[in-house]
Formats: sequence, C-alpha cells, structure tokens
Amino acid sequence: MNRPSHLTDPHLREEMVDSQELLRGSFLTARRDTVRLPDGSLGQREYVCHPGAVVVVAERDDGQLVVERQWRYPLARAFIEFPAGKLDAGEDPAACARRELLEETGYSAGRWAYAGPVHLAIAYSTEVIHLFFARDLRAGERKLDPGEFLEVFSADLDQLLQWARDGHLTDAKTLFCLLWAQNVRSGLWSLDWR
Amino acid sequence: MNRPSHLTDPHLREEMVDSQELLRGSFLTARRDTVRLPDGSLGQREYVCHPGAVVVVAERDDGQLVVERQWRYPLARAFIEFPAGKLDAGEDPAACARRELLEETGYSAGRWAYAGPVHLAIAYSTEVIHLFFARDLRAGERKLDPGEFLEVFSADLDQLLQWARDGHLTDAKTLFCLLWAQNVRSGLWSLDWR
Repeated sequence: MNRPSHLTDPHLREEMVDSQELLRGSFLTARRDTVRLPDGSLGQREYVCHPGAVVVVAERDDGQLVVERQWRYPLARAFIEFPAGKLDAGEDPAACARRELLEETGYSAGRWAYAGPVHLAIAYSTEVIHLFFARDLRAGERKLDPGEFLEVFSADLDQLLQWARDGHLTDAKTLFCLLWAQNVRSGLWSLDWR
Repeated sequence: MNRPSHLTDPHLREEMVDSQELLRGSFLTARRDTVRLPDGSLGQREYVCHPGAVVVVAERDDGQLVVERQWRYPLARAFIEFPAGKLDAGEDPAACARRELLEETGYSAGRWAYAGPVHLAIAYSTEVIHLFFARDLRAGERKLDPGEFLEVFSADLDQLLQWARDGHLTDAKTLFCLLWAQNVRSGLWSLDWR
C-alpha cells in the first residue's frame, strides 16, 4: 500500500465519544477524550491543544540563513533555531510569519514562499507549524516580547547541516526546515515565491 | 556568533525558582515552574514531562524504508511515519528501538546505528527522540499493544521525499529522519554501524 489516503480509514480511525478539558493553564491547554477504536472498544486520548505556529527560513543576500539561540526551559539549555512563534487568535499564518521575523530578528522580507504545514508532535499535540521561506531581507529594529531573550545570528546552510549531523543542532522544527532548505538549495524542490 | 555553546548563557538562561505539578493524566504529565529570567524578573513556564522516545529508519535489503500509517487522534487523521515509540521506565533507547520495531512491524535487525537525539517540541515538552537506523532486517510476527492499530508498508526514499515536498507527509519526526536518510544515502553523512 503505497498511496496516502487521509480521508477514509475505517481500520485505523478513532471516533470521539466524549471530550473533557483536563487543563487550562496560562500557556498549556489539554484535553482528555474518550474514543471508539477501530475494533469497537473504548480508549482514552490526552493531548495538548495548540493554536498553531510558524517557522521562517530567512535567507540573506549573501546566502546565509538567519537563526537564533534561545533558552528553552523544558530542556534547561539554549537551542539553535530558525525564528518561530505562535499564531495569535485568528491570525493568518503569513501575517504571523512577517510579525515573528520582524519582532525576533528585526528583518522584514521583500519576497515570501510558503512551503507547507508540518505537524510537530502528532502523538499528543494539535500543533501545526507553517513553514515559510523569506528573501530580500531589510534589517531593522527587533521588538522582543517582554520576558523574551534571544540571540540572532546567521550561518551558512552547510554549517547548519554540519551542526545537525554533529548533534549541536537538535531542534526538530529546525531540522525539518533544513530538509527543505537543502532540497531547495540543490534545486530538487522548488518554492513559489510571491 | 557562530559557535554553539550550551553550557553558559547568563544572558539567556532561566533558573527555576519554584515548580508545581499542573497535571497528572494517564498519559500526559505537565508542570508549571516559576523562573528567574536573565533580567532578574520572574516568569512562568508550563511544559509537558515526557519519558523520551525512539524512532527507527529501517532499511530493507532492496533499499526501501519501512513506514507505517497510524491514526493520530489529536489531528483526527492518519499519518505516514517511521516506526516510533516511548521509552518504558528505565529502558535503554537501543533496547526500546529494537522492541518498538519488532512490536510495530515484526522486523528484527542485524545491524543498528545511532544517529543522535532530537528534541521534538522545545517550547513546551521535555521530549527527546533518539534516532536509530536499522539494516539486515528479518521479517517476523508483529505484536501490537492492545488498542494499537496501524498499517505497515515500505517505500523508496525518493517516494518519501516526494511526499514530504508535496505535503502528503507532514510528521515532524519523520521529516527530520528524512534529512538524515537523504544525507546518509548520498554519502554526505555517515553512520557508525554496530
């Protein structure tokens, strides 16, 4: 079976029977649902409800990519990442991408391309990350949120790939961006620039 | 600044001041910590506590890679994924990789290589996924957990990459595995086979 089919999967599908809020924190919201499994039995599924996010691969005129280092408290260390952020309520992903790139790095971009959605933690989160590429960058003033601290720098794609291979770069969203960036750079994959 | 440094980051580091359990579900555990930010002010961080996981890129003798389709309830659809699963308490990642590959696909492998750890959702989860490659596969009987339903099939690397480009394959862990698989296949990155 080599054909993806997301629409009908009676042998895999789980149907909601009941749903209850498990947690409403300042940041995290979680639910526990009772589900009917493909064999008719009941099971439970617990998951984080996420508003969605964007991540931006911004390429400078010299070919370097804009990255950040940011402290990620759950793992008690800093990570090298592409700029990213959560959607505000009702926000269009493209608008969010422009906003997050500007706020976190100070760059605005003349051209944008949408690569597609990625699902980050499918076992326990509804999060979808929309992946954008940006070019024709103009440097400006960044506007970090209160309580947000991060370093911005830039690096060659080859350097980022070497860090991925060597274990210096281990953030999942940044790694799937590198899959895209590498295949776009080589010409194997193309983007629709606007 | 082009040098990764995870050890000391006084301008980025967040220190725990207090920690409380926010949720202990059957599957999800979450905490809310009060933290001291780099400027001395206080903030809050909420995150999911995860035991860690493995994902396995298993290559058949004909070069095809073993993948699955599984219903992922938080997103209400099936996903194409590499075989993966959570660590049992105290379980060694390599033992977990052997167990999950066997349980989910029926394959056991004669040779293994460890590619490294990946951090899945660094904004709100402690999850680390250990990425393994497997070769010299022997087919056997799979042993799914109760309530687990999934399809196993195999596909060429080029087919999987095309699905990633076209948006048919959007699972983050599977995408970072494809970054590895593509660079290993091309000879750019190497693995230490045991």
